[in-house]
Amino acid sequence: MKNRDYIPKATIERLPLYYRCLDKMAVFDGEEVVSSKELGGRLGIPSTQVRKDLSYYGEFGRRGVGYDVSGLKKSIGKILGVDRVWPAVLVGAGNLGRALVNYEGFNKMGLNIVSVLDADLGKIGNKIDDITVESIKEVERVVRDGSIELGIITVPGNAAQEVADELINAGIKSIWNFAPTRLIVPKDIIVRNEDLAVGIVSLIYHLSWNKHDKHGG
Amino acid sequence: MKNRDYIPKATIERLPLYYRCLDKMAVFDGEEVVSSKELGGRLGIPSTQVRKDLSYYGEFGRRGVGYDVSGLKKSIGKILGVDRVWPAVLVGAGNLGRALVNYEGFNKMGLNIVSVLDADLGKIGNKIDDITVESIKEVERVVRDGSIELGIITVPGNAAQEVADELINAGIKSIWNFAPTRLIVPKDIIVRNEDLAVGIVSLIYHLSWNKHDKHGG
Repeated sequence: MKNRDYIPKATIERLPLYYRCLDKMAVFDGEEVVSSKELGGRLGIPSTQVRKDLSYYGEFGRRGVGYDVSGLKKSIGKILGVDRVWPAVLVGAGNLGRALVNYEGFNKMGLNIVSVLDADLGKIGNKIDDITVESIKEVERVVRDGSIELGIITVPGNAAQEVADELINAGIKSIWNFAPTRLIVPKDIIVRNEDLAVGIVSLIYHLSWNKHDKHGG
Repeated sequence: MKNRDYIPKATIERLPLYYRCLDKMAVFDGEEVVSSKELGGRLGIPSTQVRKDLSYYGEFGRRGVGYDVSGLKKSIGKILGVDRVWPAVLVGAGNLGRALVNYEGFNKMGLNIVSVLDADLGKIGNKIDDITVESIKEVERVVRDGSIELGIITVPGNAAQEVADELINAGIKSIWNFAPTRLIVPKDIIVRNEDLAVGIVSLIYHLSWNKHDKHGG
Protein backbone atom coordinates (compact mmCIF):
# COMPACT_ATOMS: atom_id res chain seq x y z
CA MET A 1 0.00 0.00 0.00
CA LYS A 2 1.17 3.54 -0.71
CA ASN A 3 1.72 5.94 2.13
CA ARG A 4 -1.85 6.78 3.01
CA ASP A 5 -1.03 10.48 3.38
CA TYR A 6 -0.89 10.60 -0.41
CA ILE A 7 -4.24 8.93 -1.01
CA PRO A 8 -6.71 11.56 -2.29
CA LYS A 9 -9.63 12.40 -0.03
CA ALA A 10 -12.00 11.74 -2.95
CA THR A 11 -10.65 8.19 -3.21
CA ILE A 12 -11.31 7.61 0.49
CA GLU A 13 -14.84 8.96 0.03
CA ARG A 14 -15.49 6.53 -2.82
CA LEU A 15 -14.34 3.40 -0.94
CA PRO A 16 -17.57 3.16 1.09
CA LEU A 17 -19.54 3.38 -2.17
CA TYR A 18 -17.57 0.48 -3.62
CA TYR A 19 -17.99 -1.42 -0.37
CA ARG A 20 -21.76 -1.05 -0.25
CA CYS A 21 -22.13 -1.84 -3.94
CA LEU A 22 -20.03 -5.02 -3.63
CA ASP A 23 -22.02 -6.03 -0.57
CA LYS A 24 -25.25 -5.62 -2.50
CA MET A 25 -23.86 -7.59 -5.44
CA ALA A 26 -22.73 -10.44 -3.20
CA VAL A 27 -25.86 -10.66 -1.08
CA PHE A 28 -28.71 -9.80 -3.45
CA ASP A 29 -27.38 -10.48 -6.91
CA GLY A 30 -25.17 -13.46 -6.09
CA GLU A 31 -22.44 -12.20 -8.41
CA GLU A 32 -18.95 -13.63 -7.98
CA VAL A 33 -16.84 -11.54 -10.33
CA VAL A 34 -17.10 -7.89 -11.30
CA SER A 35 -15.15 -5.74 -13.75
CA SER A 36 -14.06 -2.20 -12.93
CA LYS A 37 -16.40 -1.11 -15.73
CA GLU A 38 -19.41 -2.81 -14.18
CA LEU A 39 -18.60 -1.65 -10.64
CA GLY A 40 -18.05 1.90 -11.89
CA GLY A 41 -21.17 1.73 -14.06
CA ARG A 42 -23.35 0.98 -11.06
CA LEU A 43 -22.00 4.02 -9.25
CA GLY A 44 -21.56 6.47 -12.09
CA ILE A 45 -17.77 6.38 -11.69
CA PRO A 46 -15.46 5.85 -14.72
CA SER A 47 -13.72 2.45 -14.75
CA THR A 48 -10.31 4.15 -14.96
CA GLN A 49 -11.11 5.92 -11.69
CA VAL A 50 -12.20 2.67 -10.04
CA ARG A 51 -8.90 1.00 -11.01
CA LYS A 52 -6.90 4.02 -9.88
CA ASP A 53 -8.70 4.23 -6.52
CA LEU A 54 -8.11 0.55 -5.77
CA SER A 55 -4.51 0.63 -6.97
CA TYR A 56 -3.60 2.87 -4.02
CA TYR A 57 -4.24 -0.09 -1.75
CA GLY A 58 -2.72 -2.94 -3.72
CA GLU A 59 -3.41 -5.38 -6.53
CA PHE A 60 -6.92 -6.74 -6.25
CA GLY A 61 -8.11 -7.66 -9.72
CA ARG A 62 -6.88 -9.97 -12.45
CA ARG A 63 -6.43 -8.39 -15.85
CA GLY A 64 -9.17 -9.52 -18.23
CA VAL A 65 -11.02 -11.34 -15.44
CA GLY A 66 -12.02 -8.67 -12.97
CA TYR A 67 -12.37 -8.57 -9.22
CA ASP A 68 -13.62 -11.33 -6.97
CA VAL A 69 -16.72 -9.71 -5.44
CA SER A 70 -16.56 -11.07 -1.90
CA GLY A 71 -12.77 -10.92 -1.78
CA LEU A 72 -12.69 -7.28 -2.83
CA LYS A 73 -15.52 -6.46 -0.43
CA LYS A 74 -13.55 -8.02 2.41
CA SER A 75 -10.36 -6.19 1.45
CA ILE A 76 -12.07 -2.81 1.23
CA GLY A 77 -13.91 -3.50 4.48
CA LYS A 78 -10.58 -4.08 6.18
CA ILE A 79 -9.08 -0.92 4.67
CA LEU A 80 -12.07 1.07 5.88
CA GLY A 81 -12.02 -0.46 9.34
CA VAL A 82 -15.62 -1.63 9.08
CA ASP A 83 -14.56 -5.25 9.65
CA ARG A 84 -14.92 -4.54 13.35
CA VAL A 85 -17.64 -2.83 15.39
CA TRP A 86 -17.14 0.74 16.58
CA PRO A 87 -19.31 1.64 19.55
CA ALA A 88 -20.47 5.26 19.61
CA VAL A 89 -22.16 7.64 22.01
CA LEU A 90 -24.70 10.09 20.58
CA VAL A 91 -25.48 13.36 22.36
CA GLY A 92 -28.79 15.04 21.53
CA ALA A 93 -31.96 12.95 21.66
CA GLY A 94 -34.00 15.10 19.26
CA ASN A 95 -35.42 14.10 15.88
CA LEU A 96 -32.03 13.93 14.21
CA GLY A 97 -30.59 11.84 17.04
CA ARG A 98 -33.55 9.46 16.80
CA ALA A 99 -33.16 9.28 13.03
CA LEU A 100 -29.49 8.32 13.35
CA VAL A 101 -30.12 5.66 16.00
CA ASN A 102 -32.71 4.13 13.68
CA TYR A 103 -30.78 4.70 10.43
CA GLU A 104 -30.55 1.57 8.34
CA GLY A 105 -27.12 0.71 7.05
CA PHE A 106 -24.95 1.98 9.92
CA ASN A 107 -24.49 -1.50 11.38
CA LYS A 108 -23.16 -2.76 8.09
CA MET A 109 -20.60 0.04 8.20
CA GLY A 110 -19.38 -0.99 11.65
CA LEU A 111 -21.15 1.76 13.58
CA ASN A 112 -23.04 0.79 16.70
CA ILE A 113 -24.67 3.60 18.67
CA VAL A 114 -24.69 2.10 22.16
CA SER A 115 -25.59 5.12 24.23
CA VAL A 116 -27.68 8.30 23.87
CA LEU A 117 -27.19 11.29 26.17
CA ASP A 118 -29.05 14.57 26.58
CA ALA A 119 -29.11 17.53 28.95
CA ASP A 120 -32.90 17.90 28.72
CA LEU A 121 -34.65 16.37 31.75
CA GLY A 122 -37.72 15.92 29.55
CA LYS A 123 -35.77 13.52 27.33
CA ILE A 124 -33.68 11.63 29.90
CA GLY A 125 -35.30 8.26 30.56
CA ASN A 126 -37.01 8.13 27.14
CA LYS A 127 -36.41 5.10 24.96
CA ILE A 128 -34.98 5.32 21.44
CA ASP A 129 -35.08 1.90 19.87
CA ASP A 130 -33.80 -0.16 22.82
CA ILE A 131 -31.55 2.57 24.22
CA THR A 132 -32.57 4.59 27.29
CA VAL A 133 -31.54 8.24 27.07
CA GLU A 134 -29.17 9.11 29.93
CA SER A 135 -27.97 12.42 31.35
CA ILE A 136 -24.98 14.12 29.70
CA LYS A 137 -23.52 14.13 33.22
CA GLU A 138 -22.93 10.39 32.78
CA VAL A 139 -20.64 10.93 29.79
CA GLU A 140 -17.38 9.98 31.54
CA ARG A 141 -18.75 6.70 32.88
CA VAL A 142 -20.46 5.83 29.58
CA VAL A 143 -17.33 6.45 27.50
CA ARG A 144 -15.05 4.62 29.93
CA ASP A 145 -17.31 1.60 30.50
CA GLY A 146 -18.08 1.21 26.79
CA SER A 147 -14.48 1.83 25.63
CA ILE A 148 -16.04 4.36 23.25
CA GLU A 149 -13.87 6.47 20.95
CA LEU A 150 -16.55 7.84 18.65
CA GLY A 151 -18.97 10.61 19.60
CA ILE A 152 -21.90 11.92 17.56
CA ILE A 153 -23.26 15.41 18.21
CA THR A 154 -26.88 16.18 17.29
CA VAL A 155 -27.54 19.06 19.68
CA PRO A 156 -28.41 22.62 18.54
CA GLY A 157 -25.53 24.73 17.25
CA ASN A 158 -25.15 26.85 20.38
CA ALA A 159 -24.63 23.77 22.60
CA ALA A 160 -22.28 21.85 20.31
CA GLN A 161 -18.91 23.23 21.46
CA GLU A 162 -19.67 22.51 25.12
CA VAL A 163 -20.76 18.97 24.26
CA ALA A 164 -17.62 18.47 22.17
CA ASP A 165 -15.46 19.60 25.10
CA GLU A 166 -17.25 17.19 27.43
CA LEU A 167 -16.86 14.29 24.99
CA ILE A 168 -13.16 15.00 24.53
CA ASN A 169 -12.62 15.31 28.29
CA ALA A 170 -14.30 11.94 28.67
CA GLY A 171 -11.88 10.33 26.22
CA ILE A 172 -13.58 10.52 22.81
CA LYS A 173 -11.07 10.53 19.91
CA SER A 174 -13.33 11.23 16.98
CA ILE A 175 -16.46 13.37 16.56
CA TRP A 176 -19.20 13.26 13.95
CA ASN A 177 -20.74 16.71 14.22
CA PHE A 178 -24.24 17.40 12.87
CA ALA A 179 -24.59 20.77 14.59
CA PRO A 180 -24.17 23.78 12.25
CA THR A 181 -21.05 24.93 14.10
CA ARG A 182 -17.35 24.51 13.38
CA LEU A 183 -15.90 22.91 16.50
CA ILE A 184 -12.59 23.92 18.03
CA VAL A 185 -10.77 20.76 19.13
CA PRO A 186 -7.23 19.62 19.97
CA LYS A 187 -5.10 18.49 17.03
CA ASP A 188 -5.33 14.77 17.77
CA ILE A 189 -9.14 14.74 17.67
CA ILE A 190 -10.72 13.89 14.31
CA VAL A 191 -13.88 15.82 13.46
CA ARG A 192 -16.21 15.29 10.54
CA ASN A 193 -18.74 18.07 10.07
CA GLU A 194 -21.92 16.72 8.52
CA ASP A 195 -23.16 20.15 7.74
CA LEU A 196 -26.63 19.78 6.28
CA ALA A 197 -27.05 23.45 5.41
CA VAL A 198 -23.91 23.23 3.30
CA GLY A 199 -25.39 20.27 1.45
CA ILE A 200 -28.53 22.10 0.47
CA VAL A 201 -26.63 25.19 -0.60
CA SER A 202 -24.51 23.30 -3.09
CA LEU A 203 -27.75 21.95 -4.56
CA ILE A 204 -29.33 25.40 -4.66
CA TYR A 205 -26.19 26.77 -6.31
CA HIS A 206 -26.52 24.29 -9.18
CA LEU A 207 -30.28 24.78 -9.46
CA SER A 208 -29.78 28.53 -9.49
CA TRP A 209 -27.11 28.42 -12.23
CA ASN A 210 -29.14 26.02 -14.33
CA LYS A 211 -31.80 28.69 -14.41
CA HIS A 212 -29.24 31.33 -15.40
CA ASP A 213 -28.04 29.14 -18.25
CA LYS A 214 -31.51 28.38 -19.52
CA HIS A 215 -32.60 32.00 -19.46
CA GLY A 216 -29.28 33.15 -20.91
CA GLY A 217 -28.54 35.06 -17.70
CA MET B 1 -16.64 35.65 -13.37
CA LYS B 2 -14.81 32.70 -14.85
CA ASN B 3 -16.70 30.03 -16.70
CA ARG B 4 -18.29 28.20 -13.80
CA ASP B 5 -17.48 24.82 -15.34
CA TYR B 6 -13.88 25.47 -14.29
CA ILE B 7 -14.64 26.36 -10.70
CA PRO B 8 -13.47 23.48 -8.46
CA LYS B 9 -16.15 21.58 -6.58
CA ALA B 10 -14.23 22.15 -3.34
CA THR B 11 -14.49 25.91 -3.88
CA ILE B 12 -18.24 25.64 -4.34
CA GLU B 13 -18.45 23.58 -1.15
CA ARG B 14 -16.56 26.26 0.79
CA LEU B 15 -18.75 29.18 -0.32
CA PRO B 16 -21.57 28.26 2.10
CA LEU B 17 -19.01 28.16 4.92
CA TYR B 18 -17.83 31.66 4.07
CA TYR B 19 -21.43 32.78 3.76
CA ARG B 20 -22.45 31.51 7.18
CA CYS B 21 -19.32 32.83 8.82
CA LEU B 22 -19.81 36.30 7.33
CA ASP B 23 -23.44 36.24 8.40
CA LYS B 24 -22.41 35.42 11.95
CA MET B 25 -19.77 38.15 11.93
CA ALA B 26 -22.25 40.75 10.66
CA VAL B 27 -25.12 39.81 12.96
CA PHE B 28 -23.48 38.71 16.22
CA ASP B 29 -20.08 40.32 16.19
CA GLY B 30 -20.96 43.55 14.39
CA GLU B 31 -17.76 43.44 12.36
CA GLU B 32 -17.57 45.56 9.23
CA VAL B 33 -14.31 44.50 7.63
CA VAL B 34 -12.58 41.14 7.54
CA SER B 35 -9.24 39.99 6.10
CA SER B 36 -8.87 36.72 4.21
CA LYS B 37 -6.64 35.62 7.09
CA GLU B 38 -9.30 36.25 9.71
CA LEU B 39 -12.08 34.69 7.62
CA GLY B 40 -9.93 31.66 6.89
CA GLY B 41 -8.79 31.45 10.49
CA ARG B 42 -12.35 31.11 11.73
CA LEU B 43 -12.93 28.21 9.35
CA GLY B 44 -9.56 26.49 9.41
CA ILE B 45 -8.94 27.43 5.76
CA PRO B 46 -5.63 29.04 4.66
CA SER B 47 -5.95 32.70 3.64
CA THR B 48 -4.42 31.94 0.24
CA GLN B 49 -7.25 29.48 -0.37
CA VAL B 50 -9.88 32.02 0.69
CA ARG B 51 -8.51 34.57 -1.77
CA LYS B 52 -8.28 31.99 -4.54
CA ASP B 53 -11.84 30.76 -3.96
CA LEU B 54 -13.27 34.26 -4.08
CA SER B 55 -11.16 35.27 -7.08
CA TYR B 56 -13.14 32.83 -9.26
CA TYR B 57 -16.13 35.09 -8.86
CA GLY B 58 -14.57 38.54 -9.16
CA GLU B 59 -12.74 41.19 -7.18
CA PHE B 60 -14.27 41.58 -3.76
CA GLY B 61 -11.59 42.81 -1.38
CA ARG B 62 -9.27 45.79 -1.26
CA ARG B 63 -5.59 45.00 -0.87
CA GLY B 64 -4.40 45.85 2.62
CA VAL B 65 -7.93 46.65 3.79
CA GLY B 66 -9.86 43.42 3.46
CA TYR B 67 -13.42 42.58 2.60
CA ASP B 68 -16.54 44.48 3.53
CA VAL B 69 -18.40 41.90 5.64
CA SER B 70 -21.98 42.60 4.63
CA GLY B 71 -21.04 43.36 1.03
CA LEU B 72 -19.14 40.10 0.64
CA LYS B 73 -21.94 38.20 2.37
CA LYS B 74 -24.43 39.67 -0.07
CA SER B 75 -22.24 38.86 -3.08
CA ILE B 76 -21.67 35.25 -2.00
CA GLY B 77 -25.36 34.88 -1.19
CA LYS B 78 -26.17 35.97 -4.71
CA ILE B 79 -23.61 33.58 -6.21
CA LEU B 80 -25.06 30.73 -4.15
CA GLY B 81 -28.64 31.59 -5.03
CA VAL B 82 -29.64 31.88 -1.37
CA ASP B 83 -30.77 35.48 -1.89
CA ARG B 84 -34.15 34.06 -2.87
CA VAL B 85 -36.36 31.41 -1.24
CA TRP B 86 -36.47 27.90 -2.72
CA PRO B 87 -39.62 26.01 -1.79
CA ALA B 88 -39.10 22.26 -1.37
CA VAL B 89 -41.23 19.16 -0.96
CA LEU B 90 -39.99 16.46 1.43
CA VAL B 91 -41.05 12.83 1.01
CA GLY B 92 -40.75 10.57 4.07
CA ALA B 93 -42.24 11.79 7.35
CA GLY B 94 -40.03 9.67 9.62
CA ASN B 95 -37.51 10.89 12.19
CA LEU B 96 -35.09 12.16 9.58
CA GLY B 97 -37.84 14.01 7.72
CA ARG B 98 -38.98 15.60 10.98
CA ALA B 99 -35.42 16.54 11.82
CA LEU B 100 -34.96 18.28 8.47
CA VAL B 101 -38.23 20.18 8.71
CA ASN B 102 -37.14 21.45 12.12
CA TYR B 103 -33.47 21.94 11.23
CA GLU B 104 -32.20 25.37 12.24
CA GLY B 105 -30.31 27.24 9.59
CA PHE B 106 -32.07 26.04 6.43
CA ASN B 107 -34.16 29.20 6.16
CA LYS B 108 -31.03 31.31 6.17
CA MET B 109 -29.77 29.25 3.25
CA GLY B 110 -32.90 29.91 1.22
CA LEU B 111 -34.51 26.49 1.77
CA ASN B 112 -38.16 26.43 2.73
CA ILE B 113 -39.75 22.99 3.14
CA VAL B 114 -43.36 23.81 2.32
CA SER B 115 -44.82 20.33 1.97
CA VAL B 116 -44.29 16.86 3.48
CA LEU B 117 -45.56 13.71 1.76
CA ASP B 118 -45.64 10.05 2.81
CA ALA B 119 -47.16 6.80 1.59
CA ASP B 120 -47.89 5.58 5.14
CA LEU B 121 -51.56 6.07 6.06
CA GLY B 122 -50.44 6.16 9.70
CA LYS B 123 -48.42 9.31 9.00
CA ILE B 124 -50.70 11.16 6.59
CA GLY B 125 -52.56 13.88 8.49
CA ASN B 126 -49.89 14.20 11.18
CA LYS B 127 -48.42 17.63 11.84
CA ILE B 128 -44.71 18.39 11.58
CA ASP B 129 -44.09 21.90 12.78
CA ASP B 130 -47.00 23.64 11.03
CA ILE B 131 -47.04 21.33 8.00
CA THR B 132 -49.69 18.62 7.63
CA VAL B 133 -48.33 15.40 6.10
CA GLU B 134 -50.13 14.64 2.81
CA SER B 135 -50.31 11.52 0.66
CA ILE B 136 -47.58 10.91 -1.90
CA LYS B 137 -50.46 10.62 -4.37
CA GLU B 138 -50.80 14.41 -4.11
CA VAL B 139 -47.26 14.98 -5.41
CA GLU B 140 -48.23 16.38 -8.82
CA ARG B 141 -50.65 18.91 -7.41
CA VAL B 142 -48.25 19.93 -4.62
CA VAL B 143 -45.33 20.46 -6.99
CA ARG B 144 -47.41 22.32 -9.57
CA ASP B 145 -49.28 24.56 -7.12
CA GLY B 146 -46.14 25.40 -5.16
CA SER B 147 -43.92 25.88 -8.25
CA ILE B 148 -41.52 23.53 -6.48
CA GLU B 149 -38.28 22.46 -8.16
CA LEU B 150 -36.53 20.91 -5.18
CA GLY B 151 -37.39 17.51 -3.70
CA ILE B 152 -35.97 15.93 -0.53
CA ILE B 153 -36.09 12.15 -0.10
CA THR B 154 -36.01 10.72 3.43
CA VAL B 155 -37.72 7.36 2.78
CA PRO B 156 -36.03 3.97 3.32
CA GLY B 157 -33.55 2.86 0.66
CA ASN B 158 -35.87 0.39 -1.05
CA ALA B 159 -38.53 3.06 -1.69
CA ALA B 160 -36.22 5.85 -2.83
CA GLN B 161 -36.06 5.16 -6.58
CA GLU B 162 -39.84 5.02 -6.90
CA VAL B 163 -40.20 8.27 -4.98
CA ALA B 164 -37.52 9.89 -7.16
CA ASP B 165 -39.40 8.81 -10.30
CA GLU B 166 -42.63 10.26 -8.95
CA LEU B 167 -40.95 13.54 -8.01
CA ILE B 168 -39.36 13.86 -11.45
CA ASN B 169 -42.64 13.02 -13.20
CA ALA B 170 -44.27 15.75 -11.15
CA GLY B 171 -41.72 18.30 -12.37
CA ILE B 172 -38.96 18.33 -9.74
CA LYS B 173 -35.58 19.46 -11.14
CA SER B 174 -33.29 18.75 -8.24
CA ILE B 175 -33.22 16.03 -5.57
CA TRP B 176 -31.56 15.94 -2.18
CA ASN B 177 -31.40 12.24 -1.43
CA PHE B 178 -30.90 10.97 2.13
CA ALA B 179 -31.77 7.35 1.32
CA PRO B 180 -28.76 5.00 1.13
CA THR B 181 -29.35 4.34 -2.57
CA ARG B 182 -27.80 5.75 -5.71
CA LEU B 183 -30.70 7.08 -7.76
CA ILE B 184 -30.99 6.64 -11.51
CA VAL B 185 -32.30 9.89 -12.99
CA PRO B 186 -32.39 11.69 -16.36
CA LYS B 187 -29.35 13.80 -17.20
CA ASP B 188 -30.99 17.16 -16.58
CA ILE B 189 -31.94 16.30 -13.00
CA ILE B 190 -29.46 17.33 -10.31
CA VAL B 191 -29.05 14.87 -7.43
CA ARG B 192 -27.08 15.34 -4.26
CA ASN B 193 -26.66 12.17 -2.24
CA GLU B 194 -26.39 12.96 1.45
CA ASP B 195 -25.17 9.52 2.25
CA LEU B 196 -24.83 9.32 6.02
CA ALA B 197 -23.25 5.85 6.03
CA VAL B 198 -20.49 7.19 3.80
CA GLY B 199 -19.89 9.98 6.30
CA ILE B 200 -19.37 7.64 9.21
CA VAL B 201 -17.12 5.34 7.22
CA SER B 202 -14.69 8.10 6.35
CA LEU B 203 -14.52 8.86 10.09
CA ILE B 204 -14.02 5.20 10.98
CA TYR B 205 -11.32 4.96 8.32
CA HIS B 206 -9.33 7.74 9.97
CA LEU B 207 -9.95 6.41 13.48
CA SER B 208 -8.88 2.97 12.35
CA TRP B 209 -5.63 4.20 10.74
CA ASN B 210 -4.80 6.38 13.73
CA LYS B 211 -4.79 3.19 15.76
CA HIS B 212 -2.55 1.47 13.20
CA ASP B 213 -0.10 4.36 13.38
CA LYS B 214 -0.02 4.44 17.17
CA HIS B 215 0.48 0.72 17.49
CA GLY B 216 3.04 0.71 14.70
CA GLY B 217 0.74 -1.42 12.52
